[in-house]
Amino acid sequence: MMSFISRKARVLGKVLQGSAVLGESIIGEGSIIDRFVYVGYPRRNKLTTMKSMDLNDLDELSSGARIGSRCIIRSHTIIYEDVELGDRVETGHGVLIREGSRVGSDSRIGSFSQLDGCVEVGSGVSIQSNVYLPHLTKIGDRVFIGPGVIVTNDPYPVSGKLTGVRICDEAVVGAGAILKAGVEIGSRAVVGAGAVVTRDVPEDSVVVGSPARVRMTRSEYEEKKKRYEIGR
Amino acid sequence: MMSFISRKARVLGKVLQGSAVLGESIIGEGSIIDRFVYVGYPRRNKLTTMKSMDLNDLDELSSGARIGSRCIIRSHTIIYEDVELGDRVETGHGVLIREGSRVGSDSRIGSFSQLDGCVEVGSGVSIQSNVYLPHLTKIGDRVFIGPGVIVTNDPYPVSGKLTGVRICDEAVVGAGAILKAGVEIGSRAVVGAGAVVTRDVPEDSVVVGSPARVRMTRSEYEEKKKRYEIGR
Amino acid sequence: MMSFISRKARVLGKVLQGSAVLGESIIGEGSIIDRFVYVGYPRRNKLTTMKSMDLNDLDELSSGARIGSRCIIRSHTIIYEDVELGDRVETGHGVLIREGSRVGSDSRIGSFSQLDGCVEVGSGVSIQSNVYLPHLTKIGDRVFIGPGVIVTNDPYPVSGKLTGVRICDEAVVGAGAILKAGVEIGSRAVVGAGAVVTRDVPEDSVVVGSPARVRMTRSEYEEKKKRYEIGR
Repeated sequence: MMSFISRKARVLGKVLQGSAVLGESIIGEGSIIDRFVYVGYPRRNKLTTMKSMDLNDLDELSSGARIGSRCIIRSHTIIYEDVELGDRVETGHGVLIREGSRVGSDSRIGSFSQLDGCVEVGSGVSIQSNVYLPHLTKIGDRVFIGPGVIVTNDPYPVSGKLTGVRICDEAVVGAGAILKAGVEIGSRAVVGAGAVVTRDVPEDSVVVGSPARVRMTRSEYEEKKKRYEIGR
Repeated sequence: MMSFISRKARVLGKVLQGSAVLGESIIGEGSIIDRFVYVGYPRRNKLTTMKSMDLNDLDELSSGARIGSRCIIRSHTIIYEDVELGDRVETGHGVLIREGSRVGSDSRIGSFSQLDGCVEVGSGVSIQSNVYLPHLTKIGDRVFIGPGVIVTNDPYPVSGKLTGVRICDEAVVGAGAILKAGVEIGSRAVVGAGAVVTRDVPEDSVVVGSPARVRMTRSEYEEKKKRYEIGR
Repeated sequence: MMSFISRKARVLGKVLQGSAVLGESIIGEGSIIDRFVYVGYPRRNKLTTMKSMDLNDLDELSSGARIGSRCIIRSHTIIYEDVELGDRVETGHGVLIREGSRVGSDSRIGSFSQLDGCVEVGSGVSIQSNVYLPHLTKIGDRVFIGPGVIVTNDPYPVSGKLTGVRICDEAVVGAGAILKAGVEIGSRAVVGAGAVVTRDVPEDSVVVGSPARVRMTRSEYEEKKKRYEIGR
C-alpha cells in the first residue's frame, strides 16, 4: 500500500503508506503524515459537480494545503484544501479541518475534533478531544478548550446569517460547554465545565451554569487552583 | 491499493482506492464512495460467530446496502448491511450508519455522526456533526439537528425495553441538546441549544433549558430570526 | 493492500488488509483485527523525537499491546502500546485507546469513544458511543456508560495536577452526563442523562440535574424501571 503524492505537491517531511497529499500542498521539513490521512481534500462544491472520481481527479481539483515544519498529523485525519498549519502543530487521530482554516504554531488539536471551515486558531492553543468548532469561529493565542466543547454559529437555526464565536487570548473553556452563536469569551475568562454560554463573558471572569453566570474572577480562580495544586 | 468490490454488488458509481463494497450492495449512478469506507458491513451477531475473517468472508456474510444515485459517501464512513440511502444523500467523514437504517433523498449526515441501527430519517434532513441517534429513532422530513445532539432510547438504563424518540417534520434541535427516551418533538417545534428534553414538545413550540420548558411559539421564533437576519 | 505485522508480534487471530500490528503485540486466539486499525501505536513522546518515519520505524519504537482471545477490534480503531485488553472485548469503529490503559474481559467500547491514557476499565462494562475518558479514569465491573458522556480530570484547567474520576461497580451514567475531576460515583449509583456531577455520588443513590442532586435511591429506580418494562 503506497502513499499518493501529487506531482504538484512539495513534501519535505514523511508521508506514510495509504495516505494522500493532493494538489499544490506543501509539507514542511520534519513533518509526519500518518496513515489513512488526506491532505488537500477538495471543498464540497467541487465534489458535487464531479463527473468521475479517483485520486487523480481529486488531485486535479485540489488547490492544496500548507503544513509547516515538524508537525505530526496522526492517522485518519482529513485536512481540506486552503488550510494552513504553522510549525510544530499536532493533530490527534481522526481530526477534520475544513477549507479556509488557519492554525498557529505550537497548537494541538485533539482526536475527533473538527474545525468546520474558515476557523482561525492562534498559537500555543490546546484543543482537547471531540471539540466542534463551526465555520467562522475565531480563537486567540494560548487558549485551552476542554473535551467535548460545542461552539455554534447560528442563533436561530436555520437562518440565512452566521455569526462566529470569538474566544480571546488565554481563555479557558471547560469540558462539554456549549457556546451560543456570536458570544465573545474575553481574554483570560474561564467557562466552567458543562456551562451553556448565552451572553458575552467579560475578560478575567469565571462563569458557570446554564445559562452561564459570573461566579468569580480569574484571580480568585487562580488562587483556588494554587490551593488545589498544593493539596489543601 | 485497490478497492474491493463484491462480485455480487452492482456498482454504477465510483469506488475509490482502499474501500470495500460487500454483498449484494447497489451503488447508484453518479454516486461516489470515497476512501477507507465500508459499504455493506455485516451486523454484529454475524461477526461474533465467524470462524475466520478476511474481506472475502465478510463479503460472503453481507446482505449488502443500497445507495441511491448521486450520493457522496465521504472517507472513513461505515455503512452496514440492510441500510438504504435515497438519492443525493451525502455523508461527512467518519459517519457510521448501522443495519436497518433508512435515509431519505437529499438528506445530509455530518462528520462523525452515528445512526446506530434501525434509525429512520426522512428527506431533506440536515444532521450536523457528532450527532448520536440510537436504535429506533425516527426523524421526519426537512428536520435540522445541530452538532453534538444526543438522542437516547432507554429511560432506565439498562432496562429490557427500548423506546425510540420521534422528531417530526421541520423540527429544529439545537446544538448539544439531549433528548430522553420516548419523547416526541412535534412538527416545527424548536429545541434550544443545550436543552435537556424530558417530556414531549408540542408542535410549533420552542423549548429551552434543563429540563426544557416552553419559552415561545415557532412564529415568535421566526419573528426573532427575521429581525436577526436583517440586523436589528 | 496487505496488513503489516511486526516480526516481533505474536498473532493467533486474524488481521485484515490495511491494518498494522506493531512491536511485541500479542493478538489472542480467535480475535479479529478489522481494517484501517493500528495495534501498538507508539506513545506521543516517542513520535516527537523521531527523525524519520515509516511503518518499520513505528514498529521498532513500539513496545506492543496485548489483546486477549475472541476480541473484535472494528475498523478505524487505534490501540496504543502498553494497552491490555482481556478476552472477548469488543470495540466499535473508530475507537481510540491510549497507552497504559487496561480493559477487562467481556467489556465493550462504543464507536468513536476514547480511553485517553492510563484508563482502567473492569469486566463486563458497557461503554456506549462518543464517550470521553481522560487519563487516570477508573471504572469498576459491570458499569454502564451512556453515549456522549464526558469525564474530566482537572478541576482547574490547566493545572499542574490531575485527579481521576472513579466509577464504582454496577454504576450507571446516563447519556451526555459530565463528571467533574476527582468525583467518585458510588457502587450501583445512577447519574441521570445530561447531569453535571460536581460532587461525589453516594452508592445506591440516583442523581439528576445541573449541578446533580440526589433524587431517589437505586431501589426506587429499579421499581420504576420494572413498572416501565411491564408497561404501566
